[in-house]
Order: sequence, then structure tokens, then C-alpha cells
Amino acid sequence: MQIEGKNQVIEAIKNDVTINKILIDKNFATRRDDVINLAKKNKLKIEFLPKKVLDEKSLTGHHQGYIAETVEFEYSSIDEIFEYANSKNGEKDGKFAKHDPFVVLLDGIEDPHNLGAIIRTCECAGVDGIVLPKMRACQVNETVVRTSAGAISHMKIARVANLKTAIDELKERGLWIYACELGGADLFGQNLTGPIGIVIGSEGNGIKQSLRTYCDGVVTLPQLGSVNSLNASVSAGIVIYEILRQRAGEAPKFLTRTRTNLSF
Amino acid sequence: MQIEGKNQVIEAIKNDVTINKILIDKNFATRRDDVINLAKKNKLKIEFLPKKVLDEKSLTGHHQGYIAETVEFEYSSIDEIFEYANSKNGEKDGKFAKHDPFVVLLDGIEDPHNLGAIIRTCECAGVDGIVLPKMRACQVNETVVRTSAGAISHMKIARVANLKTAIDELKERGLWIYACELGGADLFGQNLTGPIGIVIGSEGNGIKQSLRTYCDGVVTLPQLGSVNSLNASVSAGIVIYEILRQRAGEAPKFLTRTRTNLSF
Repeated sequence: MQIEGKNQVIEAIKNDVTINKILIDKNFATRRDDVINLAKKNKLKIEFLPKKVLDEKSLTGHHQGYIAETVEFEYSSIDEIFEYANSKNGEKDGKFAKHDPFVVLLDGIEDPHNLGAIIRTCECAGVDGIVLPKMRACQVNETVVRTSAGAISHMKIARVANLKTAIDELKERGLWIYACELGGADLFGQNLTGPIGIVIGSEGNGIKQSLRTYCDGVVTLPQLGSVNSLNASVSAGIVIYEILRQRAGEAPKFLTRTRTNLSF
Repeated sequence: MQIEGKNQVIEAIKNDVTINKILIDKNFATRRDDVINLAKKNKLKIEFLPKKVLDEKSLTGHHQGYIAETVEFEYSSIDEIFEYANSKNGEKDGKFAKHDPFVVLLDGIEDPHNLGAIIRTCECAGVDGIVLPKMRACQVNETVVRTSAGAISHMKIARVANLKTAIDELKERGLWIYACELGGADLFGQNLTGPIGIVIGSEGNGIKQSLRTYCDGVVTLPQLGSVNSLNASVSAGIVIYEILRQRAGEAPKFLTRTRTNLSF
């Protein structure tokens, strides 16, 4: 990605966007210049180039002599998420311990602050990977990178054309898939141990009906208020940490699970 | 509260600030006017007054002929929080059931979006009240009202000069006070049933050391990542719902509790 224009580059630096280097018109090299001062203060690499080169590199045609090359986020594949999950298998207390894969699927999260906060939570909770749809959802942009507070560089995120196909693939690999939505089983009464994938919907629209019925079950947070509206990143955090709790301790025992929509 | 100036009033209407009525210079009454159009579209009450009256009402001296009177948030007292908590005592399954008070104390939350999200979570989880310090913390402003998505009008919020004094008062009323911070006992191994108050710190600075040692204990979320940084509203949500889970089901039994800093 690249950011062009004087004010845009200044904003990017101030907002801690991860910048590879800043290309500046070499005629400005001797100037006392806001961008140069700020870049030096933040120890960013500066390259002075002829205006002609900047003109060629510019995608917008309005670089004003300043182009910041930002670090491009590299999406992973679902295969890579599972490779990473498998790498967590190993010895524990002298015995072989198998790590159960834990994947978070996001259906239609549009607010980059929510996406950033969810990435932070996933990183903190040791989630193996996140699956995002390519369409009608926030992608990893500068705001997400900034809001994730560094967590993004430790998180595997796969982008898929179709969440249903991804759910199919996860089920084939042995994961139980739960939608987090209103009208399901009590989150705290559900056995959520073992390999698992959870689907989080957007605040406005929740999870698409067609996708929800494709999951093995629906879990719901108890709600005792009158408004009963939780921020998407907050409810994701509660579900993710309940899974962590059950993995470390005791899971509710009174529920048996049956597969829905098995396609294999 | 009142909002003054043309653009400021337009912004307030567009952002769904709860407006009581809009005072407009009566010389503008026959104008085709952005504020008037927008106010009518949103079915807001308009009062046309002589410029002199607006001058008198103005706090900034820059009303430009427009003052929006917004609905003032009414803070509660700690007494009122407990009255409300007590009102939840009652019959359950044919027996008298005592409701254990549940209070959330916020130390230095400065981001209004975080405060709004925490208020939403508290409303949803049936928390009885929130305690905010008057100094060095975000107060209930327009952004908080908007972010709380309606939850604010169902939540009792007390403002106190000193959080320590408030903690003292809560302890005297029988609450156990836990700080949610790094370096404490595992959240999921701690018995958090009974009357409880939890202290949530700001993202940047956490809970002040002097306040933390004043609590009965410190609980910490398990963290399995490398960055391990959770959004304040997300970690508040996880702790609040773990308390809800223990209230409804089984709490860890292996921990006994001892009071710290009892002043009574």
C-alpha cells in the first residue's frame, strides 16, 4: 500500500501506520519540512528521488512530492492457519499434548475499530486464525492495523470468497462450528471444548440466516437488561474467553453434540 | 448541556444527540435554513426567540442564532445504586431470593467509545451501577450517549470525588472488590460470587497502584499471545460475564477469600 500527499503522509506517521520508507521529491531535501522533521523524529527511512520518479510511482497523481510506502498486510490461507495450529502440538507435562485448532470467522464486520479490537482479542487468547469474507466486510486497512495495536503482525488472517465453503472445509478438518447469535443455546451451558470455529456477525445484521443454519449450533450470551445490545468486539471477546476457560478447566458436561449439515 | 453555533447544532442533530429543543433567532424564522430543515425532518421542537434572549442564554458568546438544549444526563448516588440493587430481591421458584449487588468502578477510562461500550455491556449483563471518578476520566458526554446505543438511559452511574472512599463505602455494604489487572489471580480460578465490585483501569495506565492495593484481590485474564493487549471494553466484558456465569452456575471452589485493607 502507499499513501500520497503531504497531509496524508503526516497523518499516517502520527497514527503509527507501519511505514517502510518515505519517498520525497529531492528538491525538498534542503527544506525545513514537516514531513521530514516528523519522519526523522520517528526514525523512518527517507529516500529523496527526482520528481519524475515520484510521478511514475504515484497511483493518485496527487503525491505533492510525498509518498509513504506502507507495509502490506499478508493474508494467509486456511492451510497456513492449520499448519500454525499443528505447530502447537507438543510435549506437556511429559506427555504428548494435541492442540485443538481454534478459528474465528467474521461475517460482515464493517467497522474497522471492531475488526482491530477482535484481532487484538484473538491474538491475546491464542486463537490460531481468523477467516474474513472478501465481500461486504471490512478488510485489513490502515485503521485496522492501528486499532489492533500490534496484534495484527502475529495473527493469521485468511480471506475467502465464500464463508460457507470455508465452514465446509473447517468441518472436514474436524472443527465444530458455532454461530454466536441471539436465540441459541446458553453460551455457558454449551460444551465448547475440542477443535472449534466460531462465527461472529456484524452488530447491525448479525449472521446471515443461510450461514447460521450451516453451523453445528448457535450460542447466545445471557442478557438481563432492557436494551441488550453488545458491541460486536465485546461479545466476540466473551465467547472467545469462555472457550479458553473450558479448554483450561471444566466444560459443562450435560450437552451432547450432533452435527448439522455434514457434507462429507 | 447546550450546543451553540450553526454547524455544531447540525452535527448534533446528525449524530442523534438527544435534543430537548432548539432555540433559533426569530429573525431566521422565515429563512430556508439548514438547521430548521434538519430539525423538522427529525421532528425536533423549535422555539424562535429574540436575538437578545439567545445572547443571554449563550455560554460561549458564539451562538450565531442557534442553541440546542440537550438532555442532561442525571447521575445517581451510590445510595440509589443500592436501592436499585435491593429492588431486585424477590421471589424465585417459590422462595425468597436475595440479589447480590454488582457494581463496576472505572479508574481513568478516557476514551468515550470505551466508556459507551462498557455501559452497553453493563446494561446487558444486569450490572446494578457504575462508579466514575470526577477527575481524570471521561464523563458522560454526547459521544458516550451515542456509543452506548440507548443503554445509558437504563444505567445508574454515580460520580465520586474519590474512588478509594467509594471502595470503602462498597466494602462496608458487604461487597468484595476486585481489580482487573495484570499480575493477579487467574480470573477463571477465582470465586466471584456474592456481592461484588470490580475495578477496570484505562488501557494505557491500568489501575493506579494505590487503588489496586486497596482492593480485596486482583484478577487477571489468561493471555496466550505475544502482544497480549486487550481493549478496555473487551476485557471489562469478559470479567463481567464470568461473574454472570458464576452467579448462574458453578463457581470455582478451591479459593478462600480474605479481606484486605478493611477500614471498618
